[in-house]
Amino acid sequence: MSAFATIAIIGKYQSPEVAESVVSLADFLRQRGLSVLVEEETAGALASGDFEVANYDEIGTRADLAVVLGGDGTMLNSARRLAQFGVPLLGVNQGRLGFMTDIARGTMLEGVASVLDGNYTSEQRFMLNAEVWRDGVKVFEAKALNDVVTNKGDVGRMIELEVKVDGELIHVLRADGLIVCTPTGSTAYALSANGPILHPSVAGIAIVPLCPHALTHRPITISDQSLVEISLLPSYEAGVHFDGQQRFDARAGDTVRVARTAHSITLLHPPGYSYFAMLREKLSWSAFPRH
Amino acid sequence: MSAFATIAIIGKYQSPEVAESVVSLADFLRQRGLSVLVEEETAGALASGDFEVANYDEIGTRADLAVVLGGDGTMLNSARRLAQFGVPLLGVNQGRLGFMTDIARGTMLEGVASVLDGNYTSEQRFMLNAEVWRDGVKVFEAKALNDVVTNKGDVGRMIELEVKVDGELIHVLRADGLIVCTPTGSTAYALSANGPILHPSVAGIAIVPLCPHALTHRPITISDQSLVEISLLPSYEAGVHFDGQQRFDARAGDTVRVARTAHSITLLHPPGYSYFAMLREKLSWSAFPRH
Amino acid sequence: MSAFATIAIIGKYQSPEVAESVVSLADFLRQRGLSVLVEEETAGALASGDFEVANYDEIGTRADLAVVLGGDGTMLNSARRLAQFGVPLLGVNQGRLGFMTDIARGTMLEGVASVLDGNYTSEQRFMLNAEVWRDGVKVFEAKALNDVVTNKGDVGRMIELEVKVDGELIHVLRADGLIVCTPTGSTAYALSANGPILHPSVAGIAIVPLCPHALTHRPITISDQSLVEISLLPSYEAGVHFDGQQRFDARAGDTVRVARTAHSITLLHPPGYSYFAMLREKLSWSAFPRH
Amino acid sequence: MSAFATIAIIGKYQSPEVAESVVSLADFLRQRGLSVLVEEETAGALASGDFEVANYDEIGTRADLAVVLGGDGTMLNSARRLAQFGVPLLGVNQGRLGFMTDIARGTMLEGVASVLDGNYTSEQRFMLNAEVWRDGVKVFEAKALNDVVTNKGDVGRMIELEVKVDGELIHVLRADGLIVCTPTGSTAYALSANGPILHPSVAGIAIVPLCPHALTHRPITISDQSLVEISLLPSYEAGVHFDGQQRFDARAGDTVRVARTAHSITLLHPPGYSYFAMLREKLSWSAFPRH
Repeated sequence: MSAFATIAIIGKYQSPEVAESVVSLADFLRQRGLSVLVEEETAGALASGDFEVANYDEIGTRADLAVVLGGDGTMLNSARRLAQFGVPLLGVNQGRLGFMTDIARGTMLEGVASVLDGNYTSEQRFMLNAEVWRDGVKVFEAKALNDVVTNKGDVGRMIELEVKVDGELIHVLRADGLIVCTPTGSTAYALSANGPILHPSVAGIAIVPLCPHALTHRPITISDQSLVEISLLPSYEAGVHFDGQQRFDARAGDTVRVARTAHSITLLHPPGYSYFAMLREKLSWSAFPRH
Repeated sequence: MSAFATIAIIGKYQSPEVAESVVSLADFLRQRGLSVLVEEETAGALASGDFEVANYDEIGTRADLAVVLGGDGTMLNSARRLAQFGVPLLGVNQGRLGFMTDIARGTMLEGVASVLDGNYTSEQRFMLNAEVWRDGVKVFEAKALNDVVTNKGDVGRMIELEVKVDGELIHVLRADGLIVCTPTGSTAYALSANGPILHPSVAGIAIVPLCPHALTHRPITISDQSLVEISLLPSYEAGVHFDGQQRFDARAGDTVRVARTAHSITLLHPPGYSYFAMLREKLSWSAFPRH
Repeated sequence: MSAFATIAIIGKYQSPEVAESVVSLADFLRQRGLSVLVEEETAGALASGDFEVANYDEIGTRADLAVVLGGDGTMLNSARRLAQFGVPLLGVNQGRLGFMTDIARGTMLEGVASVLDGNYTSEQRFMLNAEVWRDGVKVFEAKALNDVVTNKGDVGRMIELEVKVDGELIHVLRADGLIVCTPTGSTAYALSANGPILHPSVAGIAIVPLCPHALTHRPITISDQSLVEISLLPSYEAGVHFDGQQRFDARAGDTVRVARTAHSITLLHPPGYSYFAMLREKLSWSAFPRH
Repeated sequence: MSAFATIAIIGKYQSPEVAESVVSLADFLRQRGLSVLVEEETAGALASGDFEVANYDEIGTRADLAVVLGGDGTMLNSARRLAQFGVPLLGVNQGRLGFMTDIARGTMLEGVASVLDGNYTSEQRFMLNAEVWRDGVKVFEAKALNDVVTNKGDVGRMIELEVKVDGELIHVLRADGLIVCTPTGSTAYALSANGPILHPSVAGIAIVPLCPHALTHRPITISDQSLVEISLLPSYEAGVHFDGQQRFDARAGDTVRVARTAHSITLLHPPGYSYFAMLREKLSWSAFPRH
């Protein structure tokens, strides 16, 4: 018997195309005698159906598994919402292979069934928690599975940031911004900024400058136990972005404190999942010599 | 006798520190029997003085030489304002060596005097002209000596741009933005984005993506006779920045057309000026082996 | 009537697979009443045939066109051998699209016929000439269409090079080596070393360091009229490579002088040839937005 | 009383300049009543002295501390020689600050005395062990503190490598070579090849391609518990370099297996040592904003 009795279904935000898959999966799960919860915004996009609707907090406390139908963006949002609850996530992509959505839409039912039968590997991914401090007061706080990006926003000129690790100054940076990312985020935006690829098993946080003015500034990877503090120097403002999905407007003098969360999220992968195979496909790396 | 009879003086914008140098230089030039024009905003920052004041158009038509007191930013602004007139520019830096301001503040009077005596080399730098087109209508136009930057502005996600050269598609780019720069601009912002350094004698325009999503996107240098067209794909907006000093808000569907200007600006350099020496100092390149 | 009366055929070095294409093309050309010269090493690889055989010098003086069957390597070799004669080159690839071999093997006869009928565009590509000087004596000289690479050879440690342009010091470089390349070579080895892509219409030479020790060393593009001099500092030896096909062993104190050749080679392209389309295909750049 | 009773002194290889420091330090230590061992090659470079001479194995079994006088190269060599013994190392640089030699020559005696008095921090650095396998037989084995580099050696063309991690294929690489490095080595050669900087506290191994042919190949950091296997594809030969100091000639078909060693070496640092301060100085990072 499956250890998964209650299954939550989360669909891509405001996506009519995903509605059909949601209904199909929900019916399939109920036929297997499982309880199904449909995330409330996902349910709102459905034309019909009498599924039990739940918000993220209810999913977090009641579900044994959350199946996410969408792309990596949907997965990121679900991870941040469910971070504190420990519900494992299983991703079904809606067309293209995602970094975190391994099951293909066309084989969704078989794929999910197989996982429910116990055929899966489980992987922990740590997240970041970021606080923005102003004059000794915490004015914002949010989580990120990929990255916390502090950037110049809508101005022509670079910003200046003071970067500390565990209270010690690393450098003062003049740049378009700075990415702090997890191994999960190392293959996302940070990769476009020449950041390092970190395998999910590496307990490191990467600090990646965006278009740094000084040519010697390079990304640096530090322990996942470290605290990163980014302070905006006088006269500079910045946007602080969380997985590119949430945003806070920081002012001169504000400090963004980034550290890993105590708990990790759990990703389930179908049999045969390979991080390197996924990387090879996403980056078009060659598996065989070309002559 | 000097070929320079009327000299314009342009100071760094709203800079009280430069005021003293302006007055000192103006007095010096008048003592040599030369006519002096002080740029009107520069004159506004002076505490005293009975100098003849002139706007950029008057400077353009009347001056034989414009001495620019400030940094590269002041030089960029002066170049754009005087581009159409052909007045040569001579730069005096206010502390740090600039890419275009060769004479040091401390030796300003001797340096300028020497140039007036005919001791200088003259160098042409081409500029860019950019037009923004919307529904068949030109809605904006500006010049740039360094670069025309189309970027995502204040949003978390990348923008998508279609890039054409001489009417032919190069690629569709998903990125934070795109820099189009002159050789002069190749050592400015573009260098932070891993753009190529182009010696001023190279008749090329560099197209440099900002944090491109696809890892194979690289900067490309094309002929300075080419026309670059950058179109914003549907649903994407962008800021278009000229030398980081002027800005236009472009909408989805807008096309930015960039080409070199017909005329170049002329920079005068004191004897001993060396592009490579300047580059070596600015980039901390070693002139001697280190062991 | 065609302007091409005598056609040389050059095949990939020691390639039995190309022999069939050579015979097929030679027969086809003779049936059109044209004189055919088969390059002597190419002829040596043929099982049969009574074609007129010629070495590169004879081809250079007698042929109106050289059709090259092979990859970019064959094209590079042919270009260096025929550089001084001005014979235009037409490339037929043997499987994969090459940077310089536009006609596909499968449509060779139609493609060549069309070019003979006058349907082609013609493009000039400049080459490099490099001399190695030792104690005031020129000890080696060779040409390159792609690049002249001075590298550390088979040792573990970096080498130190003094680099001058037009007699002026650029910098002293501690690195694995240095590439000097043409626009043609900018998409070859130099691209792997983060060199700039230069469109063939750009009259520039790129100087690209290989794994430089100092993080501020960047590639620089200079005028194609400039002379580059690379001197090996005391105690360092190096290999000097020409298009990766010819090689000279340089000693400490040797100077490699690189400048463009006076004459360019001429490439013929079939109708519809596009540099950017080729680049897009070779670099997997997207022509359409991906969502 | 100090925990360090027997002190070994290791000097830079064949360096007469370091001999004076060796004698000075040895005398100083004996005056403190400590036993002194001078490494045998180091002793051979001394003009005089009646110090007890020892080889690396004797140092490893008898010394409580090894003081290394030289640069990072001397430190690397000492670390490899003493890896199995657990003797802590203390580095004294001979002029320039090294990544691992913190004490300055000018303050050597005070610096060492202070460490002997117990004023130091201790840091673990893991090393790599590499085996070369040929036809099922191990034909070579060596250690490295910085990096194991497999490169093309003295040929003009790239080599092809198959890279596996924990038995799983990552990719087939066409490149000048491949660096496998520790966090310690991440600021050495790998940094010139655009590798990531890994703080010594990060338990990761970086795999960094040298001039890869495919533009999407990027460095990747994996767990320090992983096994990296690099196989030379048919027809390719390579040199395998250990810290740039030892070398093995690998043939087509050979496999280089790299994994971390079971034991780490211990570095002692004087009070006030800071990894980031060292990095800032070596990379010329700014600690204060520049305007």
